[in-house]
Amino acid sequence: MTKKRPLILVTNDDGITAPGIRTLIKVMNQIGDVVVIAPDSPQSGKGHAITIDAILTCNPITIDEGEQIEYSCSGTPADCVKIAVNEVLNRKPDICVSGVNHGSNSSINVVYSGTMSAAVEAGIEGIPAIGFSLLDYAWNADFSVLEDYIKKITLKVLNEGLPDGIVLNVNFPKVKTFKGIRVCRQAKAKYTEKFDKRSSPMGKEYYWLTGEFENQDKGEDTDFYALQNEYVSIVPVQFDLTAHHFIQSLNEWF
Amino acid sequence: MTKKRPLILVTNDDGITAPGIRTLIKVMNQIGDVVVIAPDSPQSGKGHAITIDAILTCNPITIDEGEQIEYSCSGTPADCVKIAVNEVLNRKPDICVSGVNHGSNSSINVVYSGTMSAAVEAGIEGIPAIGFSLLDYAWNADFSVLEDYIKKITLKVLNEGLPDGIVLNVNFPKVKTFKGIRVCRQAKAKYTEKFDKRSSPMGKEYYWLTGEFENQDKGEDTDFYALQNEYVSIVPVQFDLTAHHFIQSLNEWF
Repeated sequence: MTKKRPLILVTNDDGITAPGIRTLIKVMNQIGDVVVIAPDSPQSGKGHAITIDAILTCNPITIDEGEQIEYSCSGTPADCVKIAVNEVLNRKPDICVSGVNHGSNSSINVVYSGTMSAAVEAGIEGIPAIGFSLLDYAWNADFSVLEDYIKKITLKVLNEGLPDGIVLNVNFPKVKTFKGIRVCRQAKAKYTEKFDKRSSPMGKEYYWLTGEFENQDKGEDTDFYALQNEYVSIVPVQFDLTAHHFIQSLNEWF
Repeated sequence: MTKKRPLILVTNDDGITAPGIRTLIKVMNQIGDVVVIAPDSPQSGKGHAITIDAILTCNPITIDEGEQIEYSCSGTPADCVKIAVNEVLNRKPDICVSGVNHGSNSSINVVYSGTMSAAVEAGIEGIPAIGFSLLDYAWNADFSVLEDYIKKITLKVLNEGLPDGIVLNVNFPKVKTFKGIRVCRQAKAKYTEKFDKRSSPMGKEYYWLTGEFENQDKGEDTDFYALQNEYVSIVPVQFDLTAHHFIQSLNEWF
């Protein structure tokens, strides 16, 4: 008896035509049967938004010659996973991979990330899930150097599974050759925003949100440190947000 | 020397005119100097979305006779906190309160919640923060029964502070009288989605996302259980998403 090929759900937040997801699809076609359900437009910074006040469309599309089946969805990354699992697919996927994001989702970026929210949404559905990101915002970034690592990490998760309530956040530094893989914790960091204030032609004030990433963490076990030192970082991410260690103290308050 | 009145930042995700935030403003005016920066339109389900691909507006507005200063912002709840801290306020607020949300943010709802994302954003900025929610979606829900509890919990946080990296998620059951406060962990739960498929007048298929909440957690220490038993639930929420307990095992993989 031959082992059944795994069913792989692929999504992202940069949109279905982004080079990052095309690389991910190419690698996944080597591993299993691939269904892509990804946003029809860029959804960066959408966090775990879902569409409850507007309609959604989800239509078959053919973008390249690969064996994958693809759907373009008007919603957010989390919407894509929901519609995949509950409407499009006839069985639960064996794994969900999201990305490859154009830009970092390490450290505090995980909170804002549509790519990681898709992975988390799959995790909530009980599907092993991985978000992949490259620390390069360029549309023509070189994703080919990631392929072997993506394949290796995906096969490992397919074989080993992931504990209930945990998904993986994988980030690649912008280098030609990786020094290896580091399992990390999320670095403490924040953005220091600078609001760029302008005036419209009608004299109305408006802003552009810009920000500078500020690492606040000197630890050498963080994703920030690993990436700075040219390692691929893997952070296990949970969506039980309870600060369990503070429950005991908080109980003394009331 | 009299103690300086605290500076209180108020926001929400239902929009600046929602009855929930009006109640919150009223209570906060009794405690300190209040600045409201809230979305100009409903932002429910927006999660931790931020606006990086469009402009933001943030304009002074007067909605009622209260002593608060108010700004209406075109962005998401997280945007509101960012623009408050980095552009509008001339000093760091002593506390940020978000809500009162019309509807539950207990259990897995915390992941999708704009209300809680605003609190988390304040937490990232190092500001003690609380999200308040009432398990009643009705626009004319009775928020007055919450006032004493909101005041008590806010004063407690102002006096005690919160540990770095932790904000509070407070939910109120839909009852006339609360049995008390329970410090809880986030219940394991998910939504089982039902996509309502329709056709447009032009014959194009579209969907409405609907879902049913499904508690998967039998624990009696969860927010779900507390709320079902008519207690106010408080969950300490963290934004270090690292599943620290899985790091050791994951290190054996690579």
